Amino acid sequence: MAQVETVLAKKLNTFVRLSPDEMACLASLQSRRRSVSALTEIVYEGQTDHRAWILQEGWANCYKLVPNGGRQIISFPLPGDFMGLRSVLLRTSDHSFASLTDAVISEVSRQTLAEIFRQFPRIAIAILWATSRDEAMVVEHLVNIGRRDAIERLAHLFLELGHRLKMVGLATSEGFACPLNQYVLADALGLTAVHVNRVLRQLRERRLITLTKRQVIIQDLPGLRALAGYDSTYLNGGIDGT
Amino acid sequence: MAQVETVLAKKLNTFVRLSPDEMACLASLQSRRRSVSALTEIVYEGQTDHRAWILQEGWANCYKLVPNGGRQIISFPLPGDFMGLRSVLLRTSDHSFASLTDAVISEVSRQTLAEIFRQFPRIAIAILWATSRDEAMVVEHLVNIGRRDAIERLAHLFLELGHRLKMVGLATSEGFACPLNQYVLADALGLTAVHVNRVLRQLRERRLITLTKRQVIIQDLPGLRALAGYDSTYLNGGIDGT
Repeated sequence: MAQVETVLAKKLNTFVRLSPDEMACLASLQSRRRSVSALTEIVYEGQTDHRAWILQEGWANCYKLVPNGGRQIISFPLPGDFMGLRSVLLRTSDHSFASLTDAVISEVSRQTLAEIFRQFPRIAIAILWATSRDEAMVVEHLVNIGRRDAIERLAHLFLELGHRLKMVGLATSEGFACPLNQYVLADALGLTAVHVNRVLRQLRERRLITLTKRQVIIQDLPGLRALAGYDSTYLNGGIDGT
Repeated sequence: MAQVETVLAKKLNTFVRLSPDEMACLASLQSRRRSVSALTEIVYEGQTDHRAWILQEGWANCYKLVPNGGRQIISFPLPGDFMGLRSVLLRTSDHSFASLTDAVISEVSRQTLAEIFRQFPRIAIAILWATSRDEAMVVEHLVNIGRRDAIERLAHLFLELGHRLKMVGLATSEGFACPLNQYVLADALGLTAVHVNRVLRQLRERRLITLTKRQVIIQDLPGLRALAGYDSTYLNGGIDGT
């Protein structure tokens, strides 16, 4: 079988070396691709069908709306990430996923997933690892909003995005393409768009990082890490053994 | 085999009706019990051994320390909850667990868990459901801190605790025993202890809920739900079918 390294395989491969058969299984898992335009709702809160999605290209966001009209962005799925895997287990999805840019997604049904878990236990473990990492990220976002000030929050988010994008070949140490605007950043960080704008200016003036024309330019990585108190263990921890 | 309904079984039973064999398996899983006194660290951040714990009696908290000296409490494990299950998968634990009161815990090794998953797939699914629910809670805490004001946050937390305690027979609609003080509440809600104190007074004066002598007394459940914009779907969603 020809080896096709999908973005998901690229990500999982950083933690468990996949065999050609396993790579082929992952490729076939992702063969049903669909294009969606920007701002399309992919999974909505309360949805009850048992499907998950893998983001292949583009950016997405996962969020929850609150009764007072506000929105809290929980995470930004990037290429190679699962969306809605939890609603395959829980009866309903407890939050929504939408594309932020034009995107390509592939569907994963509950049946397919169960079949793969049965035939390829190492893929099951690798997917569980990826899910655990996603959850560790939500914990880190909680810490970010609860206990870091605005400039630390923004620095931390950019460092995390850079780290994750690098893992799938979409960032260098110098920076990455980034479609997030002030409004989206505000909803992720529990801030207002005006506040985000002010903090972006501070980060630029301190020559740490610049967001311009949908491009993040990292000017001083060690400085940025020190400012954010950034420790990437929650993204690096791999599965062992198998 | 004699049926022993552990708190974990009581919780899992609300979602999948366990057979006598499965109940017995859960009971034997939890047979190695250990008492710990209040404020004992059970799992620490960075820990690398592959053990998880089930809280049998007492209250615990799961938290992360930030470099500036602050602490963010991520969740409050209650009787029947797993602690550190994720560090069985990830190489290191990405946060810490400690008892808040004198507590009884039981150890679950990676090997035991793998064995149970192989022999009792329905227990595996039920445990995955419980884990998914725990993660849905962290998402809800993120929304709480990011997009709710102080009084809504506190109301939401009390409603969630009441709901979870009721599930394991430790609360009624009138209230529950609660060892949380202002400092602990502050670290969970991204507030200061002084602010928590003020908000507790407001909740009492509005005759919604009172925390006094380690006891939460719910005076107006519908009023409290309306104030918090509380929707318990994230706790209720059950697994289906199996």
